[in-house]
Amino acid sequence: MSQAHVLSGAARRFLEKHFPGDAAAFTPEEMFVYGTDASRRHAMPTAVVRPSTVGQIQELLAFAQANRLPIVARGRGTNTVGDCVPASGGIVVSMARMNRILEIDPDDFVAVVEPGLVTGDLQAALAKQRLFYAPDPASVKFSSLGGNANTCAGGMRAVKYGVTRDHILGLEAVIPGGELVHCGGRTHKNVVGLDLTRLFVGSEGTLGVMTKLTLKLLPLPAATATLALAFADVDTALTAAASVFAAGILPQALEFMAREALAAVAGISTVPWPAGAGAVLLIRVDGSAEAVAADIRLVETAVQSAAPLWRQAAVSHDDEEALWEPRRLLNPASFKVAPDKISDDVTVPRGRLRQAAAGIAATAGELGLKILLFGHIGDGNLHVNIMHDAADSHERARAQTARERILALCLSLRGTLSGEHGVGLAKLPFLDQQLSPVERALMARVKAAFDPHGIMNPGKAY
Amino acid sequence: MSQAHVLSGAARRFLEKHFPGDAAAFTPEEMFVYGTDASRRHAMPTAVVRPSTVGQIQELLAFAQANRLPIVARGRGTNTVGDCVPASGGIVVSMARMNRILEIDPDDFVAVVEPGLVTGDLQAALAKQRLFYAPDPASVKFSSLGGNANTCAGGMRAVKYGVTRDHILGLEAVIPGGELVHCGGRTHKNVVGLDLTRLFVGSEGTLGVMTKLTLKLLPLPAATATLALAFADVDTALTAAASVFAAGILPQALEFMAREALAAVAGISTVPWPAGAGAVLLIRVDGSAEAVAADIRLVETAVQSAAPLWRQAAVSHDDEEALWEPRRLLNPASFKVAPDKISDDVTVPRGRLRQAAAGIAATAGELGLKILLFGHIGDGNLHVNIMHDAADSHERARAQTARERILALCLSLRGTLSGEHGVGLAKLPFLDQQLSPVERALMARVKAAFDPHGIMNPGKAY
Repeated sequence: MSQAHVLSGAARRFLEKHFPGDAAAFTPEEMFVYGTDASRRHAMPTAVVRPSTVGQIQELLAFAQANRLPIVARGRGTNTVGDCVPASGGIVVSMARMNRILEIDPDDFVAVVEPGLVTGDLQAALAKQRLFYAPDPASVKFSSLGGNANTCAGGMRAVKYGVTRDHILGLEAVIPGGELVHCGGRTHKNVVGLDLTRLFVGSEGTLGVMTKLTLKLLPLPAATATLALAFADVDTALTAAASVFAAGILPQALEFMAREALAAVAGISTVPWPAGAGAVLLIRVDGSAEAVAADIRLVETAVQSAAPLWRQAAVSHDDEEALWEPRRLLNPASFKVAPDKISDDVTVPRGRLRQAAAGIAATAGELGLKILLFGHIGDGNLHVNIMHDAADSHERARAQTARERILALCLSLRGTLSGEHGVGLAKLPFLDQQLSPVERALMARVKAAFDPHGIMNPGKAY
Repeated sequence: MSQAHVLSGAARRFLEKHFPGDAAAFTPEEMFVYGTDASRRHAMPTAVVRPSTVGQIQELLAFAQANRLPIVARGRGTNTVGDCVPASGGIVVSMARMNRILEIDPDDFVAVVEPGLVTGDLQAALAKQRLFYAPDPASVKFSSLGGNANTCAGGMRAVKYGVTRDHILGLEAVIPGGELVHCGGRTHKNVVGLDLTRLFVGSEGTLGVMTKLTLKLLPLPAATATLALAFADVDTALTAAASVFAAGILPQALEFMAREALAAVAGISTVPWPAGAGAVLLIRVDGSAEAVAADIRLVETAVQSAAPLWRQAAVSHDDEEALWEPRRLLNPASFKVAPDKISDDVTVPRGRLRQAAAGIAATAGELGLKILLFGHIGDGNLHVNIMHDAADSHERARAQTARERILALCLSLRGTLSGEHGVGLAKLPFLDQQLSPVERALMARVKAAFDPHGIMNPGKAY
């Protein structure tokens, strides 16, 4: 067991002093849950702390740097690639107690929050003031804004509004040594100095611990509407999706589910898409009521040549939610198909989606696996769920082979290993297929500018 | 004269070999224009090169690093804060010959360009395919995409679409030592590794030389419309602007001109705003024809309580351009007011605009100066032109005092020294008012990860 996995007496005394009562945990029983995340990986923390103040985090990062203790900060533990798992041991810092909305300013169109706040809680508070924080990862009801920031989370509305990165105006973070850094600011535009704000965003906890986020707000769109469409096959559905953009429409969301994904939710979905549907598109538009009505008509015209088998439009909130429900249920429903999955979020240039989907289907056929295919195709972002039974070593090996082929395929189409989940531990073995040694060395040097001794989430991301 | 200002025989031979013919310049007559930019500052380059290939830039940055020669890359020289001026001597690298559109892909919604390309030339080529590159700095017809990227240029459409940063998917750059770095990629979403792309964006030439940009495209909005409104005074106009956002409308552009700015263009403008107008708003919306018509009606309703003195709407391209012309002519027209100006692009949180404008007007009154006030108020971004006659040393000193007071005022309102121009040389003396020593040290360490010997645009930006 390396030193990082054993807490010295001095370290324990330090933590007990600065994180009194239940703000620190040292027993395996208490710490166990802090060793995992939605990647289903696990490693036991050396200690767990639950700070309530920035000062506690500053003290911790001064001590940790001096004593070379790894630090793994976590929000709500929904990361899918292992970013919250203390694989090299170390102190897990749960940000869950720092979850306050510090400010919502309807004149500045700014919110200031602590990183442990659940994204959906902020959105609910904003909606009451007709304000809008655009990023909406699928985990919006249970993931935190700090986690979203650390992974640069995407979500369904990214096609129109961009990703988390585009909605963080500034942030406060503690870096190793305990110094407090203020990056960016409170204005919607700001070009003073190097853009450390966006460097922190997506850094997967490798540079410091974010302690405050200043978010860009927009006016809440007055209306939304959704059009659901079923097509004979994946290729036709993707052709129809392309025709929406070609018609000059930028939808709020453009989502896709292929046949196997539809089958997975068939039992729990009340949406009456036809049995023969090979793929479904869900297209949401937003704006004024008039704009939304006009855009839905334009979308219907644009997809006409792809001959949809079925269509259903929804303009009321409840009707819309009903159409979206199967998409939201897809992740939990997927485990009805098989007990285990490899879940990837590959992304290809929008024009390569049909090639990617065809290649993934071919891989599934060749290897005799069920692969659920769905995702944010407005961004070229495909969620690929390779279903298998990990207890069957042959099937597990075939699933692994499928993953390798699919990642290689997407890179060959000039895509990326991850559109929104990050690299973490899961994608690290594939990283050299995308980044050159020059780029990895550069990232390591940039990290060292923040974290010269490599204590922040070591062994992750890049 | 420091060593950087004298070209050694070996350096001259190196440059003549790798930049044959007119690709290098060494005479003061030829080099003079490469020593200045729109900041009106000047310093003589030690040498000027005009590369046509990435390989030439790699050779140059290997040689420059080995010989500790400063490198100042420039696009079209429209920078307003001195970023293109070789203040510490060194080799100026003009990117003007690397100005090709390498690719426009209407399926991927991506363009790949060389950095010397003029932004407006790309937009014109895209419009033919009904594609849209959203950033539109006022200099769009003569500034380059590389320059836009290095300053993270804003522009009128930023209020809806964000700034240059939000529209660069990937880039290629040469760093000191000559290594070629590929950052980001071609997909609309990408979270693999640290975000070096956005670190380069806005870095003001201090990290490396960008050699290729991959840009995010959107569908060209089908329609636009503009509403021009005149109000009795600045405060009322800014109140009306706030009511547009409060009504849930996100316009494509929301621009503002105060009385002194209106007076500056009065002689050349054909727009019949009333003589008593204290401020004008220009509001553009985009989307489908139906959406645009509806949004204009919503804007008119929203501003009603601010009692506009005058209004004019335009839906055809020519009518719209006529309304926007005075705004575009403002910069050249400003020199009719006085021969010199200090031009700042301060930005405040949107809700603080009225306080900022009132403070700027008070400063003008106290110091007996004409200050033209206009700008992208949808972003809280004010262009402050402090007009004066620099030949009059007292007036020049008063203008400098006005600048100091206005920058301090905007920072006290939680604003930023620069919303879109950058820091360059011009804002450097004020930087410690915005950034702490911790942040400046961190930026210096990040720079050193790219440029360990400090050869890239030394003495600028941070």
